[in-house]
Amino acid sequence: MIGEIIAIGDELTSGSVLNTTSYFAASHLFAAGHEMLAMTTIGDDPEVIGRTLQQALQRADFIVVTGGLGPTTDDLTNAAVSSALDRPSTFYPEIFKKIQAYGTSLPTGQQLSLEKLAWLPAGAHALHTEAKMAGYFLVQDGKPIFFLPGVPQEMKDLLLETVITRLAVWEGEAVRQVRQKVYKVVGLVESEINRKLAHLEGRDPRVRIGYYPVFPEVHVSLTVTGPSSQEVESVFKKYDGQMASFLGDCCYGSGRDTLEGVVGSLLAGRGQTVAVAESCTGGLIAHTLTKIAGSSAYFSGGVVAYSDALKERLLGVSREIILRSGAVSAETARAMAEGMRRVTPVDHALAVTGIAGPSGGSEDKPVGTVYFGLASPDKTQTYLFHFSGERTQVQALASQTALDLLRRHLLGLDNGCRTV
Amino acid sequence: MIGEIIAIGDELTSGSVLNTTSYFAASHLFAAGHEMLAMTTIGDDPEVIGRTLQQALQRADFIVVTGGLGPTTDDLTNAAVSSALDRPSTFYPEIFKKIQAYGTSLPTGQQLSLEKLAWLPAGAHALHTEAKMAGYFLVQDGKPIFFLPGVPQEMKDLLLETVITRLAVWEGEAVRQVRQKVYKVVGLVESEINRKLAHLEGRDPRVRIGYYPVFPEVHVSLTVTGPSSQEVESVFKKYDGQMASFLGDCCYGSGRDTLEGVVGSLLAGRGQTVAVAESCTGGLIAHTLTKIAGSSAYFSGGVVAYSDALKERLLGVSREIILRSGAVSAETARAMAEGMRRVTPVDHALAVTGIAGPSGGSEDKPVGTVYFGLASPDKTQTYLFHFSGERTQVQALASQTALDLLRRHLLGLDNGCRTV
Repeated sequence: MIGEIIAIGDELTSGSVLNTTSYFAASHLFAAGHEMLAMTTIGDDPEVIGRTLQQALQRADFIVVTGGLGPTTDDLTNAAVSSALDRPSTFYPEIFKKIQAYGTSLPTGQQLSLEKLAWLPAGAHALHTEAKMAGYFLVQDGKPIFFLPGVPQEMKDLLLETVITRLAVWEGEAVRQVRQKVYKVVGLVESEINRKLAHLEGRDPRVRIGYYPVFPEVHVSLTVTGPSSQEVESVFKKYDGQMASFLGDCCYGSGRDTLEGVVGSLLAGRGQTVAVAESCTGGLIAHTLTKIAGSSAYFSGGVVAYSDALKERLLGVSREIILRSGAVSAETARAMAEGMRRVTPVDHALAVTGIAGPSGGSEDKPVGTVYFGLASPDKTQTYLFHFSGERTQVQALASQTALDLLRRHLLGLDNGCRTV
Repeated sequence: MIGEIIAIGDELTSGSVLNTTSYFAASHLFAAGHEMLAMTTIGDDPEVIGRTLQQALQRADFIVVTGGLGPTTDDLTNAAVSSALDRPSTFYPEIFKKIQAYGTSLPTGQQLSLEKLAWLPAGAHALHTEAKMAGYFLVQDGKPIFFLPGVPQEMKDLLLETVITRLAVWEGEAVRQVRQKVYKVVGLVESEINRKLAHLEGRDPRVRIGYYPVFPEVHVSLTVTGPSSQEVESVFKKYDGQMASFLGDCCYGSGRDTLEGVVGSLLAGRGQTVAVAESCTGGLIAHTLTKIAGSSAYFSGGVVAYSDALKERLLGVSREIILRSGAVSAETARAMAEGMRRVTPVDHALAVTGIAGPSGGSEDKPVGTVYFGLASPDKTQTYLFHFSGERTQVQALASQTALDLLRRHLLGLDNGCRTV
C-alpha cells in the first residue's frame, strides 16, 4: 500500500533532535511491501497537524503519525486530531487503568498528568494495552491511521509488534501473508553485503531484501509476501537458507538478538567468564556487556586503563613494553589482556588499545588504529584493525570488534570475513 | 522567516538512508532566526516533487530543496522544477565550464553525464560556482527557493556558506526576528519542569516554551519571536532570567553543552583529575567521560568492579565491609571511591554500586537502589538514590547522577533540587 509518515514535534522542526523514527518506520514498512509517498515533519501546531493529516488522507492508503501524545502541555496531537477529523475527545477508562498501573511508582504530580494520555479522539482503539505508551489507531475515510509515541524505542516496538501485522491483515480480504526476518551482520559494510546478496534480488516478486545500516552493524531484512501462508513459508525457507549461506558467519543473529547477548549466551552456555582491559574504548565494552541482565554470571569486570600509569599499576604492563612498542601496540594489547587474566580468575580477557582521535595519530599509527588482545587459557592472540570515522564511531567499531573477536573465538571461527 | 525543507530521494522514502540533511538545515536555519513550517521527504517522482513545491510556495516565505540534482537517470529534481514552475530547462555554459574543470579527473562515461548538471530551470542562479556541486536558487512568486545537492557534506557547506547569508540579506528590513535558547536539565523529570515553568507559558504570544525528554536529560527550549530585534532581545532577556531562576542549578548548560563536557571543562579549568570505580553502571561513566576528545587530560581511567572479587582485589574494599553492609551499600561505595584514589593519584574518585535489575532487588534494597561515593582530597561523601525504570535506564540515570554529583561538588552546590 501507499503510506505517509507524519512526525510531530517542535524539537524536530527546530533541528534540536534528529528524526530517526520516520526513517525506522519507512525502512520496515518498505521491507513489508509498502511505499511511502511522503514523510512529513511538522511542529506541535494543531492547525498544521490537522491540514497535514487531511492532505495525507487524500492521497495515501494509510498513515503513521508519531509524537505529541505525551502528558505535557505542548503535546497537542490528540487535540488536533479530534478537531481535524471531527472526533470529540473521549475518555477511555480501560486505557487509563493500564496507564495508572504503570504509573503507581510515579510521584503524585506526574500521576495526575497521566490522565491526559487516556483522552483520545472518538473511535480510537489502543494498539497494545500491555505497552507503557499504548498508541492507538482509528479508521478515517476507510483508511487506517496509526498514532505512535515519539520516543524512539516505544515507537519502534509498537511499529514492529502491531502496525506491520495490522497493515498486513488490513490489506486484503484475500489476506496477504507476510513473513519477515531481520539478519544482524557485523564486520561487513552495507555495500559489501549488497554485493553478496544482489543476485538474490529481483528474481521473485514475492521476495524483497532491504539493507539498514544501524551503526556499527548492518541489518538485512528478508520479506516474503504471498496469498497463502503455505506458499509464503516455502519461499521464505528457500531464501532464508540462501541468506544464511551468503552472509555466513558475519551474521551473528536475527530479530532481537544483540551481539552482547549472543556473546553472553555463548559464555553462559560454556560456563566460562570474561574480563576486559580497555584503553581507547574507555569502558564501552564493559558497559555493553553489562546491558544484559544476568551478565554478572559470566562478566567479572575490568579495568579502564586510560592512562599509562593505570596500565602499569592495575594490569602490570611493564614500562619497558610501553617505551619500546608504544601504548598503542600489539605488545601492549597482549600485556593488557594477560595482565587482566592475572588480576582476576577468568577464562578470557579482552584488551583494546588504540587511537580514537581526533588527535594522537601519527603517520605510522593514524587515527583509527586499534590493537586487540584476547587472552584465553591456551593462548593469547592479538589483532590489528584500522577503523575510519569520528572519535565515537571509532570507539563503537572497536567495542563491536572486540565482542565479535570473542564470539568468533568461542565458536571456533576464523577471522576471515572481516574487512573493516 | 517561515521556511520549508524538501528532501528528495527514493533512498530516503524507502528507509535505506537516514535523512540527516533536513535536520542539519533545520537546526542552522532555526539558529539563524527562521522557523520551519514543515520538513517533507519525498521520492524521485516528478509529479510529487512539483506538487510539494507548489504547496510550500503557498505557505512558506522560502524553501530549501535537497537532493536529486545529480548526473544519474534517477535524479529528476531539475526536470520536475522546470515543469512545475513553467521554467524551460536551460543550458548554462558558465556552470558547465566549472563542472568540466572539476570533471577532468573523471572517466569519460561520467564526464558526458556531467552536462546534465548544467541544464537548469530558466532563471536559476548558481549558488557557489567554486564548489563541486554548485547548487542554485531561483525566485518564484517573490520567494527564494534554494536547490542543494543531497550529499550531506556538500549540502552542509553550501547551506552554511551561501543559503543562510543570502536569506539574511533577503530578509532585509527584518520581517520577523527569532531568538532561541535550549536549556539542558539534569535531575528533574519532564512533568516536574513543566510544573516549575507552567506559569511562564501563555502569558505572551511572542514566547514559546517546549519540553523535550532526551533520556536521561530533559531539554527545554525558549523561543521568542517579534517584529524587531530590539523587542525580541528585551523579551528574551526577561524570560531567560526567569527560566534560569526557576530551573536553578538543575540546568547544567545550554545549546550544544553536554554534561560530560561541562564536567570535563570544570576539571580542566581547575587542573584537576578524576577516576571512576563502577559496579552497576559497568563502565558507562568512564565511557561517557571518554566521549570527549582530550579527556585524557583530566580522566585517568577506572575499574569496573562488577564482581566482589574485583572490588577487593583492585580497589582494596575489605571483605568485612562487603559481608557486613553488602556490596550495595554506602560503606562499599565509600571504600570503592577511597580505594580508587589510592590506586591512582587523582583529585576526585567517583564510585557507584547499586541494583540495576531486573533481578537482585530485595525489600530493603529494591531494584533501582544506587549508592554513590565521591572521594576528594578533603573528604569522602556518599549518596543514596532510588531510580525507576528498566535496567539500561537505571544504568543511564546512575551514570548521569554520578557526573552531576561531581559537577555539583566542583561548583560548591548542594544536592538540593534532585528528586530522582
